[in-house]
Amino acid sequence: MLLKGLLKRDIPIPLYYQLKEIVLNEILNGKLEAGDCLPTENEFMSSYQISRATVRQAMTELVNENYLTRQKGKGTFVSKPKITQQYINRVETYKEQMNKIGMNPTTEVIIFQITKANLAIGKELGLAKGAKIIELVRLRLIDAEPIVVAKTYMPYEICAFVLEHNMQEESLYQILAEHSETRITKVKRTIEAVVAGESIAKRLKIMRGDAIQIIRTSAVNSKEQVIEYTIAKYRGDRNLFVVETQVDR
Amino acid sequence: MLLKGLLKRDIPIPLYYQLKEIVLNEILNGKLEAGDCLPTENEFMSSYQISRATVRQAMTELVNENYLTRQKGKGTFVSKPKITQQYINRVETYKEQMNKIGMNPTTEVIIFQITKANLAIGKELGLAKGAKIIELVRLRLIDAEPIVVAKTYMPYEICAFVLEHNMQEESLYQILAEHSETRITKVKRTIEAVVAGESIAKRLKIMRGDAIQIIRTSAVNSKEQVIEYTIAKYRGDRNLFVVETQVDR
Repeated sequence: MLLKGLLKRDIPIPLYYQLKEIVLNEILNGKLEAGDCLPTENEFMSSYQISRATVRQAMTELVNENYLTRQKGKGTFVSKPKITQQYINRVETYKEQMNKIGMNPTTEVIIFQITKANLAIGKELGLAKGAKIIELVRLRLIDAEPIVVAKTYMPYEICAFVLEHNMQEESLYQILAEHSETRITKVKRTIEAVVAGESIAKRLKIMRGDAIQIIRTSAVNSKEQVIEYTIAKYRGDRNLFVVETQVDR
Repeated sequence: MLLKGLLKRDIPIPLYYQLKEIVLNEILNGKLEAGDCLPTENEFMSSYQISRATVRQAMTELVNENYLTRQKGKGTFVSKPKITQQYINRVETYKEQMNKIGMNPTTEVIIFQITKANLAIGKELGLAKGAKIIELVRLRLIDAEPIVVAKTYMPYEICAFVLEHNMQEESLYQILAEHSETRITKVKRTIEAVVAGESIAKRLKIMRGDAIQIIRTSAVNSKEQVIEYTIAKYRGDRNLFVVETQVDR
């Protein structure tokens, strides 16, 4: 495959930047599509008469900007568009969110048990260390690709009825809404970018050191009692979050 | 320094997890404070009679969960709390946000010039490739520590007056509010976790491969015309974003 466009050597724009613009142009114009394989470094070098360092700099910037994805031993590909969610400032179930954008998630329940709060989780739920809690760990997949692992903790005392439900099929927020005492009225989310450690990388089928987005949700009932605390780890390469805000001043 | 707490060998909880809980306990109780140095691996090994692998697993998990920070050649330290911003779903200036939490940011203007839109930026601003735009690149620091680099693009035609301002001292949104035509009425932000490439790592004084949070803002005036498009790259280790949402259904 050869890309349209020539590098100009008599202008003050660096060659790597010109090459980057040529590739970006083909992606934005749709000539290069998600999943398409790019030419190899050697092909770029001989087509454009440029050094390996120049090709690498252009490609690395496009990888860093998420236009391209490197696959070890396979090559460089045009990235799949990320799953775009208007989730952060809404209270919807994962299914509702995904169905809206035409996707059909599946859920694997990894853990669903009664356990005891450690100090950190106890603090989040407003319970003492050792208090009885429900632990629910779910993996969400889209087209069999892992997208997010969510660990949810709930106070056992008022959420015990959740244990009777099938978490592979049902949505937690719909279940919690069955009782006024556990109905969520307010959520607070924190958002952090981190790199994946060994175990989460394995679970999400990414590499150790890849970026993940951690979203922690603390959800309360009408009495400001914490009903749910969730730590969700999203694959950075597959997820994008959108928030729209009106100015009100 | 010796930590309180003993490891129990006759219970089914792994030793690394017990050690992790002991350290976490000291952090959450405030006995270990931000910046405190932890014992070395060897000290942990001899105090608790455990293997290096056990110490490493406990420490790595606490590093991954942001409680601890490793500094090459120096040791492992209790992490500084992240700068917590309620920024994502608000339209405030960076100064306003930081002042609210008692911090005093400084700004370095790195680029402030008229240039031409490339294809990607043109698309975002609703302009053709090559259209005249204003490029503004700012580094924000807190206590002389780089926190975020923001690249802002504005259509030259209606934003030319911005060039007369001192961007080291003034806030862009206050300047844009001077004219009704450039006053921001709605913003859309996207949030992505990525790993830092060479150049951004240098700028933010982090390591290549560290996590960064990219927040892109597209801000429009009352006619839905894009006035500002900004790509902000936040250090993952120093920033945390908070969003609170009421349930309205």
